[in-house]
Amino acid sequence: MKAIVVRAGKASLEEVELKEELGRGMVRVRTLYNGICGTDRGIVSGSLKFSRPPQGFDYLVLGHETLGEVQEVGEGVNLRKGDLVVPVVRRGCGECLNCLVGRQDFCETGKFTEIGIRGAHGTMRETFVDYAENLVVLPRELGEYGVLLEPLSNVVKAVREVEYLQGRSLWRCRDSTYSCRDAAIIGSGPIGLLFSMALKTMGFNVYVLNRRPPSEVEKDITEAVGARFVDTTKEVAPLPGPDLLVDTSGHPSAFVPLLDRIKKNGAVILFGTTGKEREEITAEQVTELVENNVLLVGSVNASKEDFREGGNLLTLWKEEYPDVLGKMITHKVSPGEAVNVLSGKLKGEIKTVVDWTNG
Amino acid sequence: MKAIVVRAGKASLEEVELKEELGRGMVRVRTLYNGICGTDRGIVSGSLKFSRPPQGFDYLVLGHETLGEVQEVGEGVNLRKGDLVVPVVRRGCGECLNCLVGRQDFCETGKFTEIGIRGAHGTMRETFVDYAENLVVLPRELGEYGVLLEPLSNVVKAVREVEYLQGRSLWRCRDSTYSCRDAAIIGSGPIGLLFSMALKTMGFNVYVLNRRPPSEVEKDITEAVGARFVDTTKEVAPLPGPDLLVDTSGHPSAFVPLLDRIKKNGAVILFGTTGKEREEITAEQVTELVENNVLLVGSVNASKEDFREGGNLLTLWKEEYPDVLGKMITHKVSPGEAVNVLSGKLKGEIKTVVDWTNG
Amino acid sequence: MKAIVVRAGKASLEEVELKEELGRGMVRVRTLYNGICGTDRGIVSGSLKFSRPPQGFDYLVLGHETLGEVQEVGEGVNLRKGDLVVPVVRRGCGECLNCLVGRQDFCETGKFTEIGIRGAHGTMRETFVDYAENLVVLPRELGEYGVLLEPLSNVVKAVREVEYLQGRSLWRCRDSTYSCRDAAIIGSGPIGLLFSMALKTMGFNVYVLNRRPPSEVEKDITEAVGARFVDTTKEVAPLPGPDLLVDTSGHPSAFVPLLDRIKKNGAVILFGTTGKEREEITAEQVTELVENNVLLVGSVNASKEDFREGGNLLTLWKEEYPDVLGKMITHKVSPGEAVNVLSGKLKGEIKTVVDWTNG
Amino acid sequence: MKAIVVRAGKASLEEVELKEELGRGMVRVRTLYNGICGTDRGIVSGSLKFSRPPQGFDYLVLGHETLGEVQEVGEGVNLRKGDLVVPVVRRGCGECLNCLVGRQDFCETGKFTEIGIRGAHGTMRETFVDYAENLVVLPRELGEYGVLLEPLSNVVKAVREVEYLQGRSLWRCRDSTYSCRDAAIIGSGPIGLLFSMALKTMGFNVYVLNRRPPSEVEKDITEAVGARFVDTTKEVAPLPGPDLLVDTSGHPSAFVPLLDRIKKNGAVILFGTTGKEREEITAEQVTELVENNVLLVGSVNASKEDFREGGNLLTLWKEEYPDVLGKMITHKVSPGEAVNVLSGKLKGEIKTVVDWTNG
Repeated sequence: MKAIVVRAGKASLEEVELKEELGRGMVRVRTLYNGICGTDRGIVSGSLKFSRPPQGFDYLVLGHETLGEVQEVGEGVNLRKGDLVVPVVRRGCGECLNCLVGRQDFCETGKFTEIGIRGAHGTMRETFVDYAENLVVLPRELGEYGVLLEPLSNVVKAVREVEYLQGRSLWRCRDSTYSCRDAAIIGSGPIGLLFSMALKTMGFNVYVLNRRPPSEVEKDITEAVGARFVDTTKEVAPLPGPDLLVDTSGHPSAFVPLLDRIKKNGAVILFGTTGKEREEITAEQVTELVENNVLLVGSVNASKEDFREGGNLLTLWKEEYPDVLGKMITHKVSPGEAVNVLSGKLKGEIKTVVDWTNG
Repeated sequence: MKAIVVRAGKASLEEVELKEELGRGMVRVRTLYNGICGTDRGIVSGSLKFSRPPQGFDYLVLGHETLGEVQEVGEGVNLRKGDLVVPVVRRGCGECLNCLVGRQDFCETGKFTEIGIRGAHGTMRETFVDYAENLVVLPRELGEYGVLLEPLSNVVKAVREVEYLQGRSLWRCRDSTYSCRDAAIIGSGPIGLLFSMALKTMGFNVYVLNRRPPSEVEKDITEAVGARFVDTTKEVAPLPGPDLLVDTSGHPSAFVPLLDRIKKNGAVILFGTTGKEREEITAEQVTELVENNVLLVGSVNASKEDFREGGNLLTLWKEEYPDVLGKMITHKVSPGEAVNVLSGKLKGEIKTVVDWTNG
Repeated sequence: MKAIVVRAGKASLEEVELKEELGRGMVRVRTLYNGICGTDRGIVSGSLKFSRPPQGFDYLVLGHETLGEVQEVGEGVNLRKGDLVVPVVRRGCGECLNCLVGRQDFCETGKFTEIGIRGAHGTMRETFVDYAENLVVLPRELGEYGVLLEPLSNVVKAVREVEYLQGRSLWRCRDSTYSCRDAAIIGSGPIGLLFSMALKTMGFNVYVLNRRPPSEVEKDITEAVGARFVDTTKEVAPLPGPDLLVDTSGHPSAFVPLLDRIKKNGAVILFGTTGKEREEITAEQVTELVENNVLLVGSVNASKEDFREGGNLLTLWKEEYPDVLGKMITHKVSPGEAVNVLSGKLKGEIKTVVDWTNG
Repeated sequence: MKAIVVRAGKASLEEVELKEELGRGMVRVRTLYNGICGTDRGIVSGSLKFSRPPQGFDYLVLGHETLGEVQEVGEGVNLRKGDLVVPVVRRGCGECLNCLVGRQDFCETGKFTEIGIRGAHGTMRETFVDYAENLVVLPRELGEYGVLLEPLSNVVKAVREVEYLQGRSLWRCRDSTYSCRDAAIIGSGPIGLLFSMALKTMGFNVYVLNRRPPSEVEKDITEAVGARFVDTTKEVAPLPGPDLLVDTSGHPSAFVPLLDRIKKNGAVILFGTTGKEREEITAEQVTELVENNVLLVGSVNASKEDFREGGNLLTLWKEEYPDVLGKMITHKVSPGEAVNVLSGKLKGEIKTVVDWTNG
């Protein structure tokens, strides 16, 4: 079958032979769409050091953002042909407690694999076989928007965790909601926008920060969901200091200078990993973190439950913000074109997807 | 009465007149001992900018680490003459939710006062009057060790909070305890040693880190409680990377370089506030925090419940480690001598206390 | 204005004069629909002993299940004319901690009021004035389905609480979801059906139990959402014993006999209050509760956050189960007819609503 | 070696041969004391239906309340000869998630074993071999009081769980402690008294209820720890209704009549399993449970962490209440006498222990 593979630091669309038998509990899935993200591009460029092919292979099939359709069902599987499905990305080590309870996003041994990233083939190919237990089913009404589920799942994990963590003090407002809390998100890429929607749905006042004016699409989306885009080169952020800061950039220079502006008992989500710069942190800033009980939390990956809840969110947003999900998918490319797109962002891109439906 | 006051950046033992009536719900307490800590010295030296006298006063009575004895009991108070008591330090703003529920350590408005520190007189004086609800009672058996309760209360808050926060993943070991977790504490002052004892009681393997060999007393105490002192100038820390890192130094240079060695799903308590240096944090380190789900939490102050639990810990330790608490009080000085001691640490000092019992 | 009032044990549609000024922070709302429930009928019949008019009135305006539209906005209010809104029912005592933090559903003093039930006029009237902070806004797309929010809010509180409580052990399944957990709901009225949908959305396998075959509508709804209706007179429940049992009947005879069939570490939500019978509980049953770590929890009322989350659920369900919400509203009556309907259930009724839109 | 065995419904002191090799990770323990409790007597009398010998045996060595001393240490064990140890009772099934994480007290499969109770030999014998990971070490200062750890561990599990569960609302008082909460304990046997001490240490006001006046020892102990003994035949309980009710009797007739007196948001621990009676529960009572958000929780067994924390409590109590632990051990009998004591309670007994130290 056709697949987009990375071999010796080069991506190409190839004909590969992967003997995948449909064992008990397994499902054959026809790929509909793959999302392309910074991780894919980092694998192709070689900047993502931890990427590696599965054992016994000299290439890796790319693809961890997936929307597929059940094509064939193995024994003992409770799915039907035509069901929309999304596979989880990380597969547990089978050893540590977190993996045993389905929280491979908290794997302790580091021996997990991730499809399309490290040690396991991804889904940028015509079909793939997987255990049904690794698949999350989406309502058919959701259609192609389901390709946004994988990036969203990571956002869901982060915000659910922060909600738990912030239970350490009374962080909900006098009316029991988060209506009095301001969240500032650094970065307006797909992750930044998904954070803005998830936090808005939770009831926060949301600000999306970037060092430039919004693109047309960014403007439309943030307005539609009721968030505020802030160009930090033009205005000092209109909020006196956020209760929750989310960094999606990975640049210390983007969030370290804001650390002493976080409100008392506030929190910071560290989510970005592709930053390059460095920044000084001063003893005075540390003192502020201490005196203000500030919490910083790195968050990576997602559990199946996070995918499941992400599916609910996408379905909710389709009803509540009719145009927004469509606008997030800014570009569709054929598998052949995908190879080029993997070497750099397209102009105006929020999310580019590879379209396998015309295959 | 005699009191140690700070006036215009100078500490002195003075005769002051404070009209304190014993209203309903109040207690008059005879001060037995006061502990001296970095905060007191920072107030005297002027480096602690936020310190201020109570409204209407041009001086501040120092003293927030206290052990006292009930001398006289107001109406409606359920205490008896002779009861050993310790007052909580921070008094809530009366406005924010956290203060309303007795968690003034999470005050959101910043309008709290702190006895002996900001906006309220402390207890370095012969007697003081306070509401009974601000006092924690200790068993008489505890004796002078009770003077350690205030610093311990802050440690208790931090470890209780971390225990809650780390419930985000399965952090307890296969036997339901913390027996597989390593805690490394930066700094071997009184706070570092109290952290080592509290974490040991919780079941952690504990390492106390400093940039020098241990003093005799530090050696005795860490050995007695089963912790390990590590001179980081001589040996690379014997642990491959801690699950929990506690910084009591406040120096970014002490803990930032360790951030990418924290184990997956690990946590860092930021507790020190008196550091002076600065340190670069790199994008690679941020990536490690993200990929490893690491959590950093600033922690300040303590609730009455933390004092209460600290009292239980002191009582437990008196039985379990018979010599340790006694060794932590390295020096006793008279109120007259205290003024000198407030300008700098004594040689070999773990905790110096002002002794009012010969008054 | 016209209002449905209860006076001396009799309901009637009357012209009442309620001087309600539109103060700062307030909103005038035009009532669109009111739901009628067992509580309303209990107030009219006099069986609900705790119902009482507001101070100074000899009648009570009924109505606590509401959908309204903003008609006029007071100063300092962030709502717009035409916004769909639902008022919360219970208003806190202003004294206890739970009320101070917006959790009046956990009021400890019992001094709360409830609109349309005790001590405060309800919304079965052409318009009403309320503080904006008591209103939850719904997306306009939701339309009349919003009248289901109030009963749903109570369901949301119960399931959110159970989710928290069951965090006491590992209750999530190996895949981190609730896919391995069976929930059995006693009763197929509106509350039973809303529980079935909420638990389904959380990922449970859901069984709806009744002592009779399902009505056509009950059959349609349970099938659409993927729940299973069980007529307990015809078949022994197909599940070996539920992990979660929800009683919406209030009859001890309905749930007590099932107590020793609850799975280990399972939970029981007690929600029904209108039961009449009594049932023996044996020492053997108590032993089973103990040996199996079973938890029972009574749950009443809802916070504003529960309303907010209920609004998200309704919006999600409108997209996911296009026909279901419409089918739940089985009858619409005019305010004039409502008086009759308040004396007893209509044939085939799931939810009867009073329609004020033709007023 | 000598062991107390149950064979065909009869207890006897016998010479048994149990080949127990000291494998890697194992320890040989000399038994010092065994506590005798209702479970032991139920096994002997045959009323405890689930008791069974280990596979391949026609007898069961009794004994699950143990204090022992390390006699010989296998390879890879971090214990020393002479260490005081207590073995946990329940051994996990190795299959369910709770057992995998060391919470065999929440075993879901029911395939666990319990030493001295079901499927595994107990410790009423001169020596036994066990894996070190099943042993909790106590400070030597604790001496024979350590025999109280096993019953206490079950109490610790229950109160820790209630503390977690009651986090569902603001249950702590305005001063952040439990000083405003009343706990009533039904039953004044060893379990009732241990609950009174554990809850007192947590800060509750504690009432111990029985249907008779206190014995001399019960009076001494409750007074020493600051609890109040209430003879419910003579006085209506002095508390208007407890916030926390603990039933240690297992008699529905003892706690069901109190259910509608539990305070709002209160909790009930069901702990007793040896009751015999039955009691009617009415719809009105169910309504009270619902309207008051009352929680009931069955609690059985304990994790190793609960043993560990119980050890800390015993050490604390030895210092804080010098005479109390000694008074709880009312009788010591030789292994030979134990057989008689196993058929019924001794007069004035709180805890009878079998003394193997003169063996």
